[in-house]
Amino acid sequence: MALDIGKEFMEKTKYKHLSPSDQEQGLPHPPVELELETAVSIIDLPDPRKYKADIALTQAIVQRVSVRRYAATPVSLSELSYLLWCTQGVKSVEPHLVTLRTVPSAGARHAFETYLLVNNVAGLAPGLYKFLAVDHQLAKLAFPENISTVITDACLRQRFVKTSAVTFIWTAAAYRMTYRYGQRGYRYLHLDAGHVCQNLYLAAETTDCGVCAIAAFDDDQLNQALGLDGEAQFAVYVAALGKKP
Amino acid sequence: MALDIGKEFMEKTKYKHLSPSDQEQGLPHPPVELELETAVSIIDLPDPRKYKADIALTQAIVQRVSVRRYAATPVSLSELSYLLWCTQGVKSVEPHLVTLRTVPSAGARHAFETYLLVNNVAGLAPGLYKFLAVDHQLAKLAFPENISTVITDACLRQRFVKTSAVTFIWTAAAYRMTYRYGQRGYRYLHLDAGHVCQNLYLAAETTDCGVCAIAAFDDDQLNQALGLDGEAQFAVYVAALGKKP
Repeated sequence: MALDIGKEFMEKTKYKHLSPSDQEQGLPHPPVELELETAVSIIDLPDPRKYKADIALTQAIVQRVSVRRYAATPVSLSELSYLLWCTQGVKSVEPHLVTLRTVPSAGARHAFETYLLVNNVAGLAPGLYKFLAVDHQLAKLAFPENISTVITDACLRQRFVKTSAVTFIWTAAAYRMTYRYGQRGYRYLHLDAGHVCQNLYLAAETTDCGVCAIAAFDDDQLNQALGLDGEAQFAVYVAALGKKP
Repeated sequence: MALDIGKEFMEKTKYKHLSPSDQEQGLPHPPVELELETAVSIIDLPDPRKYKADIALTQAIVQRVSVRRYAATPVSLSELSYLLWCTQGVKSVEPHLVTLRTVPSAGARHAFETYLLVNNVAGLAPGLYKFLAVDHQLAKLAFPENISTVITDACLRQRFVKTSAVTFIWTAAAYRMTYRYGQRGYRYLHLDAGHVCQNLYLAAETTDCGVCAIAAFDDDQLNQALGLDGEAQFAVYVAALGKKP
């Protein structure tokens, strides 16, 4: 019954119902990042450690509110680089095929692949990009001309996606998580996405930007817009960002 | 099949499968906080806005690592008050029965009730407490003498729960979320818990504490230890915290 799927999910992801995970069964470890299939071009991002602005943590926490209206001022490439670093930045790639990042992740699985809808970033043509976390680069992807409308529509026509400077879309490469944790890993994908999004909310305060997180989206439409199959890889969480008005 | 419950959960919580929520059907709004059933005593917490230490946001983000070993130094009541404020602090109670807090929550549902296992907090007897977010107070609960062992065991005997100064347990009062979002709300409970835990990780850096989040727990044991039924209210996420060694 779909009526109780949430309760059923919590029940069936208890340890007593879990099968041994692929890791427990000795299967090979998945890579730390999905291979990039096709890209129009690769863009180096400015060194995020050189981004100088900062804010006191408590101030950032207390003043944060969800922001759905944005100024026309573009976000700079340095700011975008900093925001990507704060949300998914890779601090090191460990020999046993895990990454250590600026956010915590269950078992350091770090199962996300970040897509960006760019509307208003200085020095970047509007369109669809993918963040290459290990190399801290952007890949420009192929996309239809109306990609901004397509993704806004997939986010249930919440207009601030279209008016955002950039919208972050965190997708799960599910096997990177379930390899170790099995079906319980679907809980962790969401917990982890919360960590990431909270860092975006806070880091945005440093760049005078505001954020509104979005979990209300049409999964199929959004996955299709990104070229994802919706099972091996799917959108977990979305956040629109732009300069505060 | 439990084998694919994660995939099934993602599928069945798509909009096309959702029934109208209780809010959409005009049912009465649940309260912003569960009523406290029994408490041994109520403890006022120091004003968290008077807590003076702070840290630069970027430094907090970059230096954060998961910490599983803690010094014997106790956490002070001011520090605990600050950490509770940064994770679930109520900035305002709105007339339409929602709270605005220091963390974002889907539709400002803020469905969490925070429990604390206190092992080493100056001025607080060890034991089990509940955070009363709206009044920023603690309720001391009744608990068996071995509560620290019971909760450590429920966290799959991860010893750092027992050696933590305090372990935060975020439980969901599920209806506060599902009232508005139906079964899709189970995704949001986990996303929201990620926001909260990330703020704890970062705020801990201000107090010279370290944190290790725990999502690997025996749900039934943990819920039972807290006196929860596991359906209307259940543990979503746990985080141990103590002074850095």
